[in-house]
Amino acid sequence: MSQRPELPAHVDIRDVSLRDGLQIERPIPLSAKLELLAAVAATGVREMEATAFVSPSKVPALADAAELAAELPQFADIEFSALVASPNGAKRAIAAGLRSVEYVVSAADGHSRANVGRSSAEATAQIPEIVAIAHDSDVTVEVIIATAWDCPFDGPTSPQRVLDVVSAAVDAGADRLAIADTIGTATPRRVADLIDRLRPRIADVPLGAHFHNTRGAGLACAYAAVSAGVTRLDASIGGLGGCPFAPGASGNIATEDLVYLLRDSGVHVDVDLGAAIAAAQVAQRAVGHDLPSALLRAGDRIRD
Amino acid sequence: MSQRPELPAHVDIRDVSLRDGLQIERPIPLSAKLELLAAVAATGVREMEATAFVSPSKVPALADAAELAAELPQFADIEFSALVASPNGAKRAIAAGLRSVEYVVSAADGHSRANVGRSSAEATAQIPEIVAIAHDSDVTVEVIIATAWDCPFDGPTSPQRVLDVVSAAVDAGADRLAIADTIGTATPRRVADLIDRLRPRIADVPLGAHFHNTRGAGLACAYAAVSAGVTRLDASIGGLGGCPFAPGASGNIATEDLVYLLRDSGVHVDVDLGAAIAAAQVAQRAVGHDLPSALLRAGDRIRD
Repeated sequence: MSQRPELPAHVDIRDVSLRDGLQIERPIPLSAKLELLAAVAATGVREMEATAFVSPSKVPALADAAELAAELPQFADIEFSALVASPNGAKRAIAAGLRSVEYVVSAADGHSRANVGRSSAEATAQIPEIVAIAHDSDVTVEVIIATAWDCPFDGPTSPQRVLDVVSAAVDAGADRLAIADTIGTATPRRVADLIDRLRPRIADVPLGAHFHNTRGAGLACAYAAVSAGVTRLDASIGGLGGCPFAPGASGNIATEDLVYLLRDSGVHVDVDLGAAIAAAQVAQRAVGHDLPSALLRAGDRIRD
Repeated sequence: MSQRPELPAHVDIRDVSLRDGLQIERPIPLSAKLELLAAVAATGVREMEATAFVSPSKVPALADAAELAAELPQFADIEFSALVASPNGAKRAIAAGLRSVEYVVSAADGHSRANVGRSSAEATAQIPEIVAIAHDSDVTVEVIIATAWDCPFDGPTSPQRVLDVVSAAVDAGADRLAIADTIGTATPRRVADLIDRLRPRIADVPLGAHFHNTRGAGLACAYAAVSAGVTRLDASIGGLGGCPFAPGASGNIATEDLVYLLRDSGVHVDVDLGAAIAAAQVAQRAVGHDLPSALLRAGDRIRD
């Protein structure tokens, strides 16, 4: 039974509470975001997705991106990133002081057109321009491949299509890659299969994974990704990111639930579990409704 | 990356809604139980844990065990089992017509004393008597090892202690075994490690696993168990079994969430996903509060 691969010794968790976690919530004041940010920073997390430089009319909850960015230098120990969907967004993020941008490309045409009004191939073709804009300012670029397993419009995404985006990103010199289960339909076997399929083309470029717990399998997928060698995972405090109009419908995997699972598996993470649970309480107050986090209710287990 | 073991072609799901799912709820009428039972039966599930023959004063929600048992013959396609905690309980279950009993033994002393007023060793010592009582009536016996990973009183359970109970059950001629994460603290690595540790002693006796989603890792643990060769899993419709006074606190892993994950992984199950979601709606009405199932909210994914 020694078939199981070794787990990595350490996994980097990027907290995406402020961007993916808040983007579908009713807009909350900048002061509440900064309170949440401080609580998340107190967990010891090293990376945070702070906001997105996209159309304020499409994502009103993140319309304060530049104002928020101006506050980030006070949290000197954290690497902040911002999501962008176009060269113009990348320029705005960099002008606002961000040192790391994420360019999101949907591998599926249906989602790509609905999300950014361009085909997947058109969005992919812009990767070199985004990388050039970022690298000209010594800014790091991560390419996130959205709908990497399924698209809400097109159904299952061809792994070849994901590989095409990965290839374009690697060839363009992207600093990091991530694969995202945008609608929370992935399962561990498909997660492992896709990572295996991409691995030879990715070579040494760091690969992250981003899961939603929409169908309850988010942590199972995260564990499958880590078992397949992924050492970067996105998560949100409290499982922020669920639809506020469907109580209990999960958003991102909850940072604290992920920390519990990884720590219990002998994988080191920078995030303190007690501080993450405390941050989830702050998050719950900030958005004004219950969050789906399991640890927020159940607490740590008896030992430790 | 071909290190990953093959998944089994088929997994048997035992629905435990009526016993583990309902035991901490306020008692509901027998008619409501039968409505739920019919809905669960309509999913195609082949095995159900129907009730427990234990002290009615300790578990008032299951005080109607004999009356419920009298209704079971109308569901001829399902193998029903009942949980027992003593030789007397086994006799009562058999007298009520059950053809399959589960004898639960806590591997940890703290939980064993709190649950049945006996040490783990004392409960283990009764396995041969229970097996004899059952086999004298051609009734199947499963020994369930509770607190197989952690005890709420004693902390982590020694795998050797679990192995001791397993050995006693195998030597006594138990027909089946199961390991239970009673308080929902297990994680996939520890699940796989324990199964590997037990496997040589279990030999060909069928092994099941029973998880709670209390800390969000229930499906991850179930997938780890299946990946380690387990082909029998307990689950409850809707994730019944959570504490009704802590909304959202999960109980058993939800049957429909498990079906989604296994089916999507290419593992065959007898349970129809749509019928399981419909049964979860019946369960939610029966208990009068929201259930934590993910599929109940999110539905099946776009394909299929």
